[in-house]
Parts: sequence; structure tokens; C-alpha cells
Amino acid sequence: MSRKVYLEDIPLDEARRRFEAALAATDGFGLIDAESVPLAEAIGRVTAAPVWAPISSPHYHGAAMDGAAVRADATLGASEATPIRLRLGTQAHWVDTGDPLPPDANAVIMIEHIHTQGDEIEIMAAVAPWQHVRSMGEDIVATELVLPEGRVLRPVDVGAAAACGCTEIQVRRRPRVAIMPTGTELVEPSIDVKPGDIIEFNSLMLAGQVAEWGGAPHRLPKTPDDYPLLKERIEAALDAHDIVLVNAGSSAGSEDFTARIVGELGELLVHGVAIRPGHPVILGVARGKPILGIPGYPVSAVLTCELFVRPLLDRLLGAPPTARPRLEATITRKVLSPMGEDEFLRVKLGRVGDQVIATPLQRGAGVIMSLVRADGLTLIPRFSEGLHAGATVTVDLLRPPEGIETTIVAIGSHDLTLDLLSNELAKLRPGWSLSSSNVGSLGGLIALQRGEAHLAGSHLLDEETGEYNLSYVRRLLKDRPTMVGNLVYREQGLLVPPGNPRGIQGLEDLSSGLRFVNRQKGAGTRVLLDYRLRQLGVDSLQIDGYDREEYTHLAVAASVAGGTADTGLGILAAARALKLDFVPILEERYDLVIPREHYELELMQPLLTLIRGPDLRRQVEALGGYDTSQMGEVVGET
Amino acid sequence: MSRKVYLEDIPLDEARRRFEAALAATDGFGLIDAESVPLAEAIGRVTAAPVWAPISSPHYHGAAMDGAAVRADATLGASEATPIRLRLGTQAHWVDTGDPLPPDANAVIMIEHIHTQGDEIEIMAAVAPWQHVRSMGEDIVATELVLPEGRVLRPVDVGAAAACGCTEIQVRRRPRVAIMPTGTELVEPSIDVKPGDIIEFNSLMLAGQVAEWGGAPHRLPKTPDDYPLLKERIEAALDAHDIVLVNAGSSAGSEDFTARIVGELGELLVHGVAIRPGHPVILGVARGKPILGIPGYPVSAVLTCELFVRPLLDRLLGAPPTARPRLEATITRKVLSPMGEDEFLRVKLGRVGDQVIATPLQRGAGVIMSLVRADGLTLIPRFSEGLHAGATVTVDLLRPPEGIETTIVAIGSHDLTLDLLSNELAKLRPGWSLSSSNVGSLGGLIALQRGEAHLAGSHLLDEETGEYNLSYVRRLLKDRPTMVGNLVYREQGLLVPPGNPRGIQGLEDLSSGLRFVNRQKGAGTRVLLDYRLRQLGVDSLQIDGYDREEYTHLAVAASVAGGTADTGLGILAAARALKLDFVPILEERYDLVIPREHYELELMQPLLTLIRGPDLRRQVEALGGYDTSQMGEVVGET
Repeated sequence: MSRKVYLEDIPLDEARRRFEAALAATDGFGLIDAESVPLAEAIGRVTAAPVWAPISSPHYHGAAMDGAAVRADATLGASEATPIRLRLGTQAHWVDTGDPLPPDANAVIMIEHIHTQGDEIEIMAAVAPWQHVRSMGEDIVATELVLPEGRVLRPVDVGAAAACGCTEIQVRRRPRVAIMPTGTELVEPSIDVKPGDIIEFNSLMLAGQVAEWGGAPHRLPKTPDDYPLLKERIEAALDAHDIVLVNAGSSAGSEDFTARIVGELGELLVHGVAIRPGHPVILGVARGKPILGIPGYPVSAVLTCELFVRPLLDRLLGAPPTARPRLEATITRKVLSPMGEDEFLRVKLGRVGDQVIATPLQRGAGVIMSLVRADGLTLIPRFSEGLHAGATVTVDLLRPPEGIETTIVAIGSHDLTLDLLSNELAKLRPGWSLSSSNVGSLGGLIALQRGEAHLAGSHLLDEETGEYNLSYVRRLLKDRPTMVGNLVYREQGLLVPPGNPRGIQGLEDLSSGLRFVNRQKGAGTRVLLDYRLRQLGVDSLQIDGYDREEYTHLAVAASVAGGTADTGLGILAAARALKLDFVPILEERYDLVIPREHYELELMQPLLTLIRGPDLRRQVEALGGYDTSQMGEVVGET
Repeated sequence: MSRKVYLEDIPLDEARRRFEAALAATDGFGLIDAESVPLAEAIGRVTAAPVWAPISSPHYHGAAMDGAAVRADATLGASEATPIRLRLGTQAHWVDTGDPLPPDANAVIMIEHIHTQGDEIEIMAAVAPWQHVRSMGEDIVATELVLPEGRVLRPVDVGAAAACGCTEIQVRRRPRVAIMPTGTELVEPSIDVKPGDIIEFNSLMLAGQVAEWGGAPHRLPKTPDDYPLLKERIEAALDAHDIVLVNAGSSAGSEDFTARIVGELGELLVHGVAIRPGHPVILGVARGKPILGIPGYPVSAVLTCELFVRPLLDRLLGAPPTARPRLEATITRKVLSPMGEDEFLRVKLGRVGDQVIATPLQRGAGVIMSLVRADGLTLIPRFSEGLHAGATVTVDLLRPPEGIETTIVAIGSHDLTLDLLSNELAKLRPGWSLSSSNVGSLGGLIALQRGEAHLAGSHLLDEETGEYNLSYVRRLLKDRPTMVGNLVYREQGLLVPPGNPRGIQGLEDLSSGLRFVNRQKGAGTRVLLDYRLRQLGVDSLQIDGYDREEYTHLAVAASVAGGTADTGLGILAAARALKLDFVPILEERYDLVIPREHYELELMQPLLTLIRGPDLRRQVEALGGYDTSQMGEVVGET
């Protein structure tokens, strides 16, 4: 099996043009056939033919009030002084609202204005023709156009169709879209997975997208990396569907297969588009159907599906293309992007001061959380080398725009309690959010300095004074009055295998032959360790593995869980995540740093209320590893 | 049965406050219970609990490339001059993309950079720790918050849940909403309806709205105007649902019933809100459930459902409230609105020149087509007497905003061929539209004069010259170069009962004892009749019914169909609509009047192409009653 993949770098526009041209030249690819559906099932579907009114609505002249139906000209001259009498049964007829008017009548006198005198009525005022009458065709005239072809049906549209006598409506059949996950390592979502298993969830997302855009997704069983089997299944999928999506496993090999099979069964138009994420996309036409190779990384999969599959569905359905709401925002950081590729940058948005701030999220194609967290996408064009900090960018929104005004932007060190807080805020105020980016404590204070965030989570220990955060705030935010409020004290401890087989008690044990795994220089945990070792008089040179550095709490935990280290320093959550035991060692203070101008914003008040209230405290305590005794207290102020 | 309905006039805000306060005090009305659903069914649902990651994603350190897994520190110092050799099986291990790293390895060297030498590999460059490794938790760290409570799930959200091992997700149960149509006259949609039958289609629209907002609608069978039966059914509906909507028939009686029953079963909070349309809405709480009386007119039904039911669903689901996109527009005409009521005015939008123009649509609560045609709603507050022409208004959009830029605004006389044209335009350019308002020919030219429209349909006969349109254009658009293009010649004729029992041949017959029905003064058809009668020397005084005036083609046709007149002058479509026969009498010219600055817009070109092409011509000819020989020709220019 050849491992060499020759990927092209075709610009996005050109790739689309090629695909469109090939499809335009494909017999039978165009508007999909129509089907008739009952009105109640038609909402959200696209009309396949105009709807002309079969009958008028109302379909008769009807009384709009309870009273007497008369001919208006018979009431001319009536007044209090000269009442007019009309004979019931010939000149006047009792009607209730909705009753049809007798043939000769063209007005209704309200019952409140009528005196009955035996078999006559007496009226004191003339009425105008068609007064209190719902006339035939007032809403819809038979033969008129009620709905054009290509309309995405809303409740009022099917209501109007019903009003003029329709019972069914011609709509475009939902295009059948095959979604074929490929890759030998793929497994269903589960918590019981073994190393090397890859949880297959792209097909779930692709199916969701296709359904949202009006297609009928069909998730086919996983196909292992087996060329003849894949080819056989692709052929079967082409026969039974209108569009086929082959979703690569993670190996280059399976991508190879798809491109080769597309070429064998039809025409391989594009293999490799100059976009990021999403580069290795495959576009082709086989047996009169579009067939696409969707890249395996989840962000690439979602993005290429939107870029290439959505227009196909719009075209088959004859539906108007839809655009996302857009807005202008200021990018917070310099973003380098390679020339030659259109990059779709995921950003979080929030209004800080006068500006809508866009904070770039992780750019890896494998980080699906970056799309979950993103408020929008901004395009860095392929002729650009990136964005400078402070640049104005256009953002296509992935969330309703009104949410931006109710977003509290937190940039800094992350802690699990921020997740709880975020969740409580969303519950207290649906639509509000606490958006937090993890750039470390120092990065958070710098973000505050630059006006990019409302608050920062921080646990910066001043090694000289043993004090937290305040000296850093004084230095970095010197001209801005700032509140430092405690969120929690959190325990750092030694992560050990279940049952603590080496019987580790504390940091003093580290110099007695244990294999240690450390955090990188500058990490809060490393600062804390060094500070404490100095206090204890332990010489770091005597610790085996002191210079073995990992970059996250979880990586430290993984080393312990994998057996390559006996212990490392980290937080309880990391121990929990990998089912390790935890030996508490010391507490550190984790504060929220909030410039006073933000502290006083109305936006901030629900959050402050939550921090001061008993519910959050209870939840944090239930997590374990936290001391909430000072939660919500102002521990410093500048 | 009492016919008296005491309707209050409670301001909208106050009505909402009362409803909210009563519900807040109702035990058990709050967030609805949760249910667990498989991920594939969770899209669009609202999370009922936060999702914390059960496992990390990736759940192991995996190779991101094909090659050899090594410990990075073992490669320190490698260069072309000083290659380093690593022993396979102990210091280096072959891995494919996605394979788990052996316990001791922390980097991958790409296969392209490796020389194999027996059971050793030789490398020429050092690698950094974690190079080409997808590290555990890179996307999601076990225990972290993946999705907050109250999130409306998108495809990427369920993808992320799957990635960290979830198979199901806790979502809010869809609130069950009973929709109870009431009214003895109600019938199912059909073209076989008799006078007095009222087609029931509100329940279809209400169910569609409820489903769109996340509820589970349940359309109950129609209940006749029968007090004990209605009460019994409402009680049953309250038992089985979370919200009950009683939709009034057209009679005041049934509204009476609902309010009375709500009062008997619980608390009647509001009966009559100061809004238009939608005034007679009923709000109450019974047996711990909200119960609403939704007015019978379709526009009132849709609007009150949005105003009062949507917030209930948001609240039960804990979903963020959603707002419609908004924009500012200029209202074209003076709109009077009574003090004391908030009026929701339906408007059409289009960009003409520099402005987005809002043209008011029909304001009747019974005209569902006004909502079908509307691009948005604008609120005329209850402290205002209306809007002056040229006022800036805020419009809540009912359509995607991008459609406004591709809307051609036609105001003037209406003809069925405009409907065909509109439909063809939507087919040629999905998302484009021809928005036409029928205000008569003269009204259309005045709209052009005021810059409110791109074009006007016109059939104005100059009685002195016998010429169409041009003299009016010269007078009304004097400083603006304008094109007059023919659309069609259309036949006007005498509408007669099927088989033409009186053997009517032409206008000369009108003075021989036939019962005639006329159009109102000023109508194009009336002008045409008078012009032609003068030419023929027929004295209008001798025509029985010459002074009996109707306001539309269809009303004339209805008089003939109903037997109160033997004939009237009108267009073929009106005859067709009521299955009458048609005696062609004369042709009139129907032109499109287009100021040159609009004629040259790119926006206009697809429309002009359609008018000049053969397809539209063929369709118009198939209608009958039209002469298309000059379609698309410029017949005059100023």
C-alpha cells in the first residue's frame, strides 16, 4: 500500500468552480424530484411548484358581526329622527358572525344598533356597502399566487395554503446523503475504550448538518481500511443516494483509497484545497452523483461539509442560499497564518468597553471544542500572512448575535470552578455566558491590561512575600483601580497510583528514590513546588525526574497512570480524570481579578451574586479539593 | 347564551407581568423534567444538565504521523554530521497515525526523516517533546465542562459529547401543548366547502410554531360551540398537557365559553390585551397549567402565540430567548393607529436607492396572506397615533436579511402575470423576489414619484387620446427619464353564468334589460367601460345596475355567480376563479413603468431577461386571456 498522498493546493474559489462546472455538465443533476406531502408535514420543506389558490378565502361573503344582513342602499337616509324599518326575511336577515350573506345583502348592521319590532327591524343610521362583511377573496383570490416555487415553508405559509383549500403541497424530496465512516480503528462512543481506538463521531455531526440543511442523512456502517470492500460499498452508496460523503479515518492510507476509487468510478476533480482546516478534501463526480472525501479531523469535517455539501443541497432543493449574521470585531492577538491558504479562524466574542473583542481559539483541526466554544469564524484570506493585534475583522456568527452583549469575557488561568460558575450563570440568566480562555494567570492579567477581558482567574504566587496576585496586579494594572476577589483555595497534591502503593506522604519523600514528573518552568504549580521545597529545605537535585517536564496537569497524571512516573504534583481534578489517588500537600489561592470599571457593570452583577451565594459554594465543596471559606470576599483592592 | 363579551384593554407589558407572576406562584410550573436521549436524536433539544467529560479526548497519547515513536531527549544532538542511532523495539517503535505511543515515548519522527539500518534507525535531527503527537486531552480533558445546562444542541455539541465518551444526553422533555380548535362551523381544508363553512387552519399554524420553539404540539379534534362538552375536553386537555391553547371559532359565543371555563377551573388573569391584531386573547392558569384563549382570526392567532406561548416554552425548556434580526427602514405611507393599542404592522421591505423602504401591508387580522408576504413587523406603540410618511421605523425581520438586497419592489396595479414573473424570478435566482403591492395604477406611479418602488404595473387609459400610460408618466415623473415596457395586453370581458344563458354578445346588449354590476368610479375597468360605451354610443342611464358598484374583479364575479346580476365587466382570471363563462370585449395594455435609474440596476436584469425570454411568454399564453406579442418591448420612453 502506497503511503504517498499527492495533495493539491487548489484555491477555494477554483475548487468550487470546478465542482460546479462538472455538476452542471452532469445529466440528471439539478433540481431534485418533487413529492406531495400533507400540509402538517410540509413545514421546513421547500416548495417544488408554485401554489395557486384553488378557491378564494373567505370563499363566500360572510358576516363579520352578529346582526342583520341588509342591502346598504335600503338604509340610505336612516337617522334617529327618520328611522327606517326593514322587513325580516325579505329586506333583512338575522346572521351570526361567519354566516354567509343572503344573495342580495351587502352589509351587516350590528345587533346592538337594531330595534326589533315584530317582524321588522328599525334602524337609526345608514350603513355603507360591505360594512361588517368579510368579503369573498378578502384574504386570497382563487387563482392567485399563494406561494412561489423554492419557498422554505413556514407555519403561516402552510396556513395560507390550507385557507385556500389545499390539503397537500408539492415539495422537493429530501436529498439522500450517504455518510460513510472509514477506518479500521473506529469505535462507537463509549467510556470503555482502549488506547488506539478512535471514537467515531464525525458521522453524527455530518448527519446533523445535512438534516439541518434539508437533506436526509443516512449513516452507513463503518468500513475498515480495506480497498475492495470500500469500493464495493461506495458503489452501492452511489446507487442508493443523491450525494455520497466518504469520511476518512485518521490514516493517510484510507484517504488514498477514496481518491483512487473516485477516479476509478468517475472523475476525481479536486484532491486538496488551499483551506485550513480542511485541506485534504476530495471532490468528484461518479455515476452522475457528487462524491466527496471529507477529511477525518472533526473541525475539518464540519467545515468542509458546510463549504461544499450545503451548496449542493441548496441546489438540489432550489432553496435560497442562507448567510450567517455578520459583525465587525477587533482581534485581540497577532495571528500568523501561512500565505496560500484561506484560514477559517475560530473566535470567541464579547463586548469589552466600546469594542467587540474577538479572541482566537485553538486552531488545531482536531479540537472540536474550539467549534463548541466559538461564537464565530473569521476568514484570513490566502493572500495574507495573518492578522495584527487590534485588526478589525469580519466575523460570521455561529451564535445569535444578542448573546454577545451578555457575555462575560474571562481570560487567564482556568479552574473547574469557572466551569461551574459558567453553568450557573447560564441557568440564572438563559442566554448569558461566561466565556473563559485558558492562557495562564500572567496572560490573563496582560489581557486585562489590553482591555481584552472583563476579568482574569489568577493564582500568581509572589515568591518573595508568599502573597498571591496583588503585587502582580499593582505592577501590570497600575493606573486602573482593580478588585481582587477570592474564588477558592484549591489543593495541590501528589498524584499517585490507586492505593498509593509507594506510601507517599509528602514532598519530603520525593528525594528518596521515587520517579517524579515535573511541570514546566513558569507554571504556577512549578513555582509553588519550588517555593515549598525551599521552605522544606529539600534539594531539587536529589529528586529523580525533577527535570522531566510536562505541560499540563493531565499530562502529569497520564505519566503516573502509565507507570513511567511514581508521582507528580497537580490538582485533584487531574487525579480524578485518570482515576488516580491524591495526597493533598498545600493550598493555593485562586482569585478573580476584576478592574473596577468592569466590577461595576450591570453585566457583572449576576456573576457576583452567584459567587457570593450558597449554591455555587455547595457545588464547589462537593467537588472536593477546594476550600470556599473566602469565596466572594474582596481580598485586595488597588 | 349571553353574547356580551366584556373585553379588557390591558397593556401588553401588564398582561405579561400578570401572567408571569401567576405562573411564578404556581407550584410545579418551572423547568420541565429531563429525559435521556441518544446523541443522534439530541440535536435541537435543550440540555437539562451540564455535560462533564467522562473521558479525555484523545483518551491516549497518539501518533499524529506515521513514523517512529521515541523519547525526545534521546535525539538531542542529532544532526547530519552526527546522526544518532536508536534501537527498534526499545528506543524506537514504528507507529502509524493514530497508534498509541509506547509508555516511554513522547515524540514521533516522521517516516520520511528516518533511515533504517537493520534493527536500528538513524536520525539526522533532534525532535522536540510532543512533536507529531496528539496528546491525551488535547481536545477535551476528562472532568471538564463540555456543555452547559440550557444549551440548544448543535451538531458540533453532540459531536463533542460523543468525543468524550457520552452516548446519551439529558435534555428537557418537549412540553406537551394541546391545541383545541373550537367552533361549530369549522371544517377541514378542502375545495368542496359550502357557504358558512369555515376552513380550520389555525391549529396547523399553531402546531408549526410550537414545534419550531421546541414544544410537542397535539392538535385535538374540533369542539363545537357546546359549553359542557368544551369544558369536559378542556379538563381532559389540562390533565394530559403542559400548556393548553383554546382557539376560538369565529363567534363571540365561543370566546365567552373559554373565559368562563378558565375562570371556573382556575384563575382568569387577562381577557383582552391592548394589542392589534390579537386583542381578544385570554390568559389564565388552571390546575397548575397555563391555559390561553387564542383569538380566531389567523393573524391574531399567530401573533398572540408568539407573544405569549413562546416565552412559556423558553421558560419550561430553560432555553435562551431568541430575538429576530432587526433593521431600520423608512415607512412609505402615513399610517394612522389608534392610541391605546400596540399595533404590530406588517411591512414589505426592499432597498430603493439609498433607503430600505417599508411598505405597510393589509392590516386586517383575517388576512393571513399579509403575514405570508411580510418581510417584517414594526411596532406602533400604544402612546402613538401612528406613523408619518418618511418616518424611520425598527423592523423585526421575518425573513433572512440578505433577501432585502435582492428584492425588486413593484407597487401599482396587479395582474396575474406578475405572479408568474415573481415565481420565475425565484426559480432563476433562489432568494431573489419580486414583491408586488396592489394599490392601482395611479398609486403605483405616485410610489415611483416618491422613490418607494423600482417599478409599477400600470394600465391607465388616457380617455382623450386612447393612449395608455405615457401621458400619465410624463405628468407624474416629469424630471425622471423613464422606460415604459409592455408586459401584456389583457382581455376584459363580460362575466356570465356558465353556458351564457342570456346569450350576451357585447356591451351593446347591456341596455336591453340585463341586470348589470359595475366597478367603482376610478377603477381602470370602469374608465375602460365608460370610454367604450361612449365610442359605441350606449347611454349608461339605460343600463340596469350601472350604479351598483363593486370594488374588485372578484366581487363582480361573485355577484354573477350568486345570481344577483346577469353580467359584469372583468378579467378572465375572475371568471375562472368562480367558474364563470367569459365573453371577450376589448383588450387593454398593461405596462411596466420603470425609471431609467432602476432599469439599469443589476438587480433588474434577471427580471428583464425573463420578460424578454420565451418561457414566461409561453406560461402567460397558457393562462388564456392575454396577448404577449409585445411582451418585453419598450413602448414608450421619457
